Amino acid sequence: MDVRFAVNVAPKEGILDPQGRAVEGSLGHLGIEGVSAVRVGRRIELTVSADDGGAARAIVDRLASELLSNPLIESYQVEELGAASSLVGGAA
Amino acid sequence: MDVRFAVNVAPKEGILDPQGRAVEGSLGHLGIEGVSAVRVGRRIELTVSADDGGAARAIVDRLASELLSNPLIESYQVEELGAASSLVGGAA
Repeated sequence: MDVRFAVNVAPKEGILDPQGRAVEGSLGHLGIEGVSAVRVGRRIELTVSADDGGAARAIVDRLASELLSNPLIESYQVEELGAASSLVGGAA
Repeated sequence: MDVRFAVNVAPKEGILDPQGRAVEGSLGHLGIEGVSAVRVGRRIELTVSADDGGAARAIVDRLASELLSNPLIESYQVEELGAASSLVGGAA
């Protein structure tokens, strides 16, 4: 079975997030008010072919912790997007 | 009211995604099989203070299209994470 997942990687709390600060610094130029606590992370979407959902999930977890995130400074969270078809670039 | 949002930014279909190719190229080294169609994008989480949910959503949409994504090569999708509290770095 093919399952499409998203892995959301975010800087851990307390870790500096220069990209988030840059976004906040740009808000004034756009005249946008009321936006705060901006955190910039990554989102990786991928398709896993495995025997069952549990095996697919195990592969994603391994990939997320060993390749897609740096556990020292980042946390990740896996989201199952459903059976894979043409979900590339699609919705959550 | 304070609402926490996530903006998921992904390369549009047909647009080169060198980071996705790099991840796929690393899978062999990790001995991971069955992973395909990797797309690497960004995920920005932020809190919006506005009079109501509609106003908050309008601010996020403007921010997403004008600052957080490049509409020529990227698409974005807004996810409402709920009333803001200590959701920074939290779940979807």
